[in-house]
Amino acid sequence: MQHFLTTESLDRDQLIAILDTAESFTSVDGRNIKKVPLLRGKTIVNLFFEASTRTRTTFELAAKRLSADVLNINVNSSATVKGESLLDTLRNLEAMHIDMFIIRHHNSGAAEFLTQHISPGISVINAGDGRHAHPTQAMLDMFTIRRVKGEFANLRVAIVGDLLHSRVARSQIHALRTLGAKEIRVIAPRTLLPSHIEDLGVVAYQNIERGIKNVDVIIMLRLQKERMQGALLPSQHEYYHLFGLTRDRLAMAAADAMVMHPGPINRGVEISSAVADGEQSVILQQVSYGIAVRMAIMSMLAGN
Amino acid sequence: MQHFLTTESLDRDQLIAILDTAESFTSVDGRNIKKVPLLRGKTIVNLFFEASTRTRTTFELAAKRLSADVLNINVNSSATVKGESLLDTLRNLEAMHIDMFIIRHHNSGAAEFLTQHISPGISVINAGDGRHAHPTQAMLDMFTIRRVKGEFANLRVAIVGDLLHSRVARSQIHALRTLGAKEIRVIAPRTLLPSHIEDLGVVAYQNIERGIKNVDVIIMLRLQKERMQGALLPSQHEYYHLFGLTRDRLAMAAADAMVMHPGPINRGVEISSAVADGEQSVILQQVSYGIAVRMAIMSMLAGN
Amino acid sequence: MQHFLTTESLDRDQLIAILDTAESFTSVDGRNIKKVPLLRGKTIVNLFFEASTRTRTTFELAAKRLSADVLNINVNSSATVKGESLLDTLRNLEAMHIDMFIIRHHNSGAAEFLTQHISPGISVINAGDGRHAHPTQAMLDMFTIRRVKGEFANLRVAIVGDLLHSRVARSQIHALRTLGAKEIRVIAPRTLLPSHIEDLGVVAYQNIERGIKNVDVIIMLRLQKERMQGALLPSQHEYYHLFGLTRDRLAMAAADAMVMHPGPINRGVEISSAVADGEQSVILQQVSYGIAVRMAIMSMLAGN
Repeated sequence: MQHFLTTESLDRDQLIAILDTAESFTSVDGRNIKKVPLLRGKTIVNLFFEASTRTRTTFELAAKRLSADVLNINVNSSATVKGESLLDTLRNLEAMHIDMFIIRHHNSGAAEFLTQHISPGISVINAGDGRHAHPTQAMLDMFTIRRVKGEFANLRVAIVGDLLHSRVARSQIHALRTLGAKEIRVIAPRTLLPSHIEDLGVVAYQNIERGIKNVDVIIMLRLQKERMQGALLPSQHEYYHLFGLTRDRLAMAAADAMVMHPGPINRGVEISSAVADGEQSVILQQVSYGIAVRMAIMSMLAGN
Repeated sequence: MQHFLTTESLDRDQLIAILDTAESFTSVDGRNIKKVPLLRGKTIVNLFFEASTRTRTTFELAAKRLSADVLNINVNSSATVKGESLLDTLRNLEAMHIDMFIIRHHNSGAAEFLTQHISPGISVINAGDGRHAHPTQAMLDMFTIRRVKGEFANLRVAIVGDLLHSRVARSQIHALRTLGAKEIRVIAPRTLLPSHIEDLGVVAYQNIERGIKNVDVIIMLRLQKERMQGALLPSQHEYYHLFGLTRDRLAMAAADAMVMHPGPINRGVEISSAVADGEQSVILQQVSYGIAVRMAIMSMLAGN
Repeated sequence: MQHFLTTESLDRDQLIAILDTAESFTSVDGRNIKKVPLLRGKTIVNLFFEASTRTRTTFELAAKRLSADVLNINVNSSATVKGESLLDTLRNLEAMHIDMFIIRHHNSGAAEFLTQHISPGISVINAGDGRHAHPTQAMLDMFTIRRVKGEFANLRVAIVGDLLHSRVARSQIHALRTLGAKEIRVIAPRTLLPSHIEDLGVVAYQNIERGIKNVDVIIMLRLQKERMQGALLPSQHEYYHLFGLTRDRLAMAAADAMVMHPGPINRGVEISSAVADGEQSVILQQVSYGIAVRMAIMSMLAGN
């Protein structure tokens, strides 16, 4: 692997290799000195065209714990404002002998576009491109599922929420299929379900009570504020009433179902506080494993 | 000590221990290689809900000189804007295996609130909460006083300015009392004096000439611009006329009185340039010792 | 050298020493571990009063590859907003035991002003002051020219564009003269040519076809957007028509003429894409050498 762009483009062995490598990095977090020298002297650029403290922070932490030097470039305040194209930005950073780019961009395909023009030996990690993919988030979700459930083969997984705009969901679906999950359901109001989503190999539900029945894993999606104000949804309150994950609804899933969410949570919108903070929630483990998974991906791309 | 929240909650031995430890760190600043490995592999987060380049910078420098990795999180551009609560922000950062939080927040009690919910083994340093406390600033002031004056027992100290809104002043008063200062005076116009301030063990003056008489230490407070524009003060010019520290007024203090200010200075508002830059001013020493004092507190919380 | 403020103030031996030192640093960029310990334990502050991701980034990278600790201070969000003067900002940072300042400021002479007040042992690098100078950019240009052309003695150099507002051009002209370039031409519309520019030892042209004839080096200047909207220029399109560097015009220069630009490029304004991306362009090499040249200057100021 030179780049890490989507979960879709990787086969089962590659996904498993990432999960296995991440296992070895979880121990670093618990050490007194949380640093390994694997990327010492390497320069990693966080190139963020969309604001995201959370994702940027986990990549920065992962890079620092690998002993890399990290540059944060928030493109609102950079030369792109002066009209420089994405490609010119890339060429200039390349010339500075950057080893790895972590890119988040509002356009689907931005990360892949970079890889078509980048010099050999430089790696690109997609940290979210438009509505297309967010593969490191999906891999930390897979890691969390495997940690809790062991195997994928017998799992029924439900993804609940704004499937239409979610790059996370697309990456999750591809990873879950490749890893052999038994059944993948998507649950959303009709306005937030992409047409032809069944082509991805999932079963669509517009009713959460039916969709959630007997599932082993529930992945909630974040409802973006701007969706709630638009025409796609009646109101935040109505959404919670119809699709929010409450205790009563969680009780319809398998008894040991795990509850996931990429964060940040909208309490009382897509999930109740009782569920988010409850015993079946692994939301904070997801954050925690996110560091190890990103360390694994960075380290593997760097040739370790 | 697991946390460092106020000067009020510490006894004399604890305050002295901080000052003594800071002494040992002053030598690091003068070295060719200004780094000690005490916090290597630790991750420290500057979690600032109020903008402050100065305080954030001194904490960042102190952490880097202890060899820690530092993350700056400016919360205006983070998930809190998306509606995430302070507690969710904490839980998420905790999950990333942060070792220490430096928090500045506009609400009094924010730092203490975090400590009530934080996991064992993680430390919180209060870098200013509302009008409540700013204990690291107070400790660097104590350090500066001890460096210049030796002992606290015989000292008359005057704190001059906007006592009403000053979190620094509260922390200074508690520290000075615990360290045994002979007399603590506060000097301010009536509109900027908290009612019942005498309960803290200080004597209040509304006349600077009388208040400053024979004192050994003069601590000027910064007058926030927004106060000058409000109803509490007639005008900036009038304030300087009545309460500004000029050479003539300084001459009323003890001959070897030292002049302090937490910065940044409003020249010609609360202090004249002649005094701020004069021989009795230790304002820049305060900045300098601020690094050593913060290194000491961080190092002690980390168990060294 | 304690400071690096202008190319004008340095003699030929000093300029050559910088170029020679930079040669030794170009190899660091190609290493697996791109770090040398020359500035370990030193603290360098990027003190930027004008936004500039590109220049700030190259200084930050150069400093990190020398193993220094770097603080970025963007003065829009700092105490200067609270009314603190440049000198007070300097004094405060000095008190924090900073070893080196990289300053960019909108006022000509700001960097030199600092050096008049700074403590011995602290260095200042001018990263651009008003319309006055941008000497590290000029030195990386000289480095690039020497790398490609070998010697300066036989070179005809043309600088094309907004000479009136360009601090880069002034620094380039001084460096080229000191290094013994055979001929220096400046090419611009009359409204963008400083009066008396010939006093700097250059020949002025208002026609690019004549000015570019037989030159060995073409240095394009960036046309700031705000100039295009002002009264000095008819339109962006008109400027390109009259002064843009196209293939046809490039063909009038020497057959092996090299094309330079400080970036970011305005494609189709001051330069055509065919030329910017063409074989004679060394624009990306300039960026690359910029790291080595800045490492050289920092290292020399630090006494290595």
